[in-house]
Amino acid sequence: MRSLLPLPPSRVRTMTGDRRLGAGVVDPSLLACPAPLRHATVQLAHGGGGRLTRELVERIFLPAFGSSAGAERHDCAVLEPPAGRIAFSTDSYVVTPLFFPGGDIGKLAVYGTVNDLAMSGAVPRWIAASFVLEEGFSIAELEKVARSMAEAAKSSGVEVVTGDTKVVDRGRGHGVYVTTAGIGVVPPGVEIGPANIRAGDALIVSGDLGRHGVAVLSVREGLEFEGEIASDCAPLSGLVCSLLEAGIELHCLRDLTRGGLASALNELALDAGLELVIDEAAVPVGDAVRGACELLGLDPLYVANEGRLVAFVRQAEAPRAQAVMRARAEGARAAVIGRVERQGVSRGRVTARTPAGPTRLLELLSGEQLPRIC
Amino acid sequence: MRSLLPLPPSRVRTMTGDRRLGAGVVDPSLLACPAPLRHATVQLAHGGGGRLTRELVERIFLPAFGSSAGAERHDCAVLEPPAGRIAFSTDSYVVTPLFFPGGDIGKLAVYGTVNDLAMSGAVPRWIAASFVLEEGFSIAELEKVARSMAEAAKSSGVEVVTGDTKVVDRGRGHGVYVTTAGIGVVPPGVEIGPANIRAGDALIVSGDLGRHGVAVLSVREGLEFEGEIASDCAPLSGLVCSLLEAGIELHCLRDLTRGGLASALNELALDAGLELVIDEAAVPVGDAVRGACELLGLDPLYVANEGRLVAFVRQAEAPRAQAVMRARAEGARAAVIGRVERQGVSRGRVTARTPAGPTRLLELLSGEQLPRIC
Repeated sequence: MRSLLPLPPSRVRTMTGDRRLGAGVVDPSLLACPAPLRHATVQLAHGGGGRLTRELVERIFLPAFGSSAGAERHDCAVLEPPAGRIAFSTDSYVVTPLFFPGGDIGKLAVYGTVNDLAMSGAVPRWIAASFVLEEGFSIAELEKVARSMAEAAKSSGVEVVTGDTKVVDRGRGHGVYVTTAGIGVVPPGVEIGPANIRAGDALIVSGDLGRHGVAVLSVREGLEFEGEIASDCAPLSGLVCSLLEAGIELHCLRDLTRGGLASALNELALDAGLELVIDEAAVPVGDAVRGACELLGLDPLYVANEGRLVAFVRQAEAPRAQAVMRARAEGARAAVIGRVERQGVSRGRVTARTPAGPTRLLELLSGEQLPRIC
Repeated sequence: MRSLLPLPPSRVRTMTGDRRLGAGVVDPSLLACPAPLRHATVQLAHGGGGRLTRELVERIFLPAFGSSAGAERHDCAVLEPPAGRIAFSTDSYVVTPLFFPGGDIGKLAVYGTVNDLAMSGAVPRWIAASFVLEEGFSIAELEKVARSMAEAAKSSGVEVVTGDTKVVDRGRGHGVYVTTAGIGVVPPGVEIGPANIRAGDALIVSGDLGRHGVAVLSVREGLEFEGEIASDCAPLSGLVCSLLEAGIELHCLRDLTRGGLASALNELALDAGLELVIDEAAVPVGDAVRGACELLGLDPLYVANEGRLVAFVRQAEAPRAQAVMRARAEGARAAVIGRVERQGVSRGRVTARTPAGPTRLLELLSGEQLPRIC
């Protein structure tokens, strides 16, 4: 069996009953409370397509993701989007550790794909989830990840409609890697992307930066900072929806993940062929994150976030866009941080005015600041 | 940067030029012949979202997958499907070895998702590809995989439109794991799935079984068999399309991957609540595969395929369906192998009439016959 989810949970439980009893009779007790899995850790056979794969799907994934979409179809989900454009995105998640303050790999995998879709102005709808499990991984932890994904899906209005599970030999994975793909529906008239960035646009970030990277790193390195730093891991689709509903003309959106604000801006400056200038003092960074970054020798502008975006809007609309963001919890610390310069000899470049006065060039990182952060 | 593909290659090369020269001037020589990558093996920083990630995307993935879909959008592709239903599917690929007679992990990853979509009668259209690379993996092999995926996409009429790359520490992966997700368009009126299986339906397999599993295993174990056994790895969407165009009423389709024919039939028997009976002598298995299976103690009915399906059609349409399959190269050895029994006490069961006379029960595998076969 290749897919996780095709059948609504009620029907699947019936089938489990059928098979256990061997002769087409359903034991009603099985419907209420499925027996625990035979194994406490992942076995190679959980990826073999046989009885153990089916057990894993029926006992762990279906109860978590139970969905009506694609019922009756094992190899894929069949969906009915409204007519028009769809957005399609994918991301793999290999974060270590799997659980960190404010989130876990499951939440990250759902929100990450939801956010990628939202950056095109799409309303995220459906998620496919694929798991590469390491032999010996704890089934209880896998269940925690699946439940967390299900909660994250619910809170961001998407349905996990199909999936897959593979198992690799011990030492050839790291517990679990999750890959999500997502489909969203782009409302008519919405056109958001680097090509729409214009000289004079204002840059607005949706909140304080660096929390995700520092939260993950603090667990990984066993560090404790004053005031717990929790990941900013959150869906951004609601925020984008609020901006669109308020009639803000969004030129471009980008979520600030690996490589942080500086990397995202470099990508966009290159793609749009324009210069971006930010005022470093205006970039919101929490005191705890700032302190941790100083201690660790990290630049908060390059640290990963998982619930932050930068928006490009016309200068005149910037105050209203900032206000719309601030009206939401995940945008409470939104701030205008810079602008797009007229195209010139410096196109493709990102500079920061520092509090001390001189400007510094924010370059695309050559190395890896924080590996396996998402 | 999260996605692989948003820009058409021409534009990306221009940007690479921009950045290399630092001041908005394009060196035309860069457009013609991009320089080789700075590293011969995958570095952690290739997954960091900075300069090396961009280099990998621009030099390896974009030249392979170069696509116009989703241009200008970095976080996802924006697509325009015709109105109506879409099919959505995902699969991870962890096969070892990465290259085997008749295929490789890249081909498998494209055809596997194409085939999952085709099993619902959908015409596969778009693929998202996500890579989990192991630090130290050869860039040359990665390029081989990407090129193979591009060829497979071309030959099955799909476009790779978006993607992602992550890098895990040495010893936490196995060269490369690939996850593909796919979107297909389901033609109006097409309804294919286990719920449509009817008592009396004929079962037709599209070709000889077991080649993929034996091909992979032979490389893995360093075995040589009389006559090279190449994987059957192939797209099935053309075959399905031919059946639909011929007006065959397809009740259900299933590709015969992990766990082989026996596992697929068990899944379907359980899902449809019907008994399936096959005539083992009618199941096409090549002599070389049969010999290898005897030597290895494998049952060919449980060995993985990657380019074979079983179709459920009305008994009266079976000869014509078989003829339509046989008219295509990948269906040349199609054969009617059994039928669906009336629902009774044996529903959910699969039995095989053996050449010797008695019937045997084909059970869902409890263990793992061949790990990491796809």
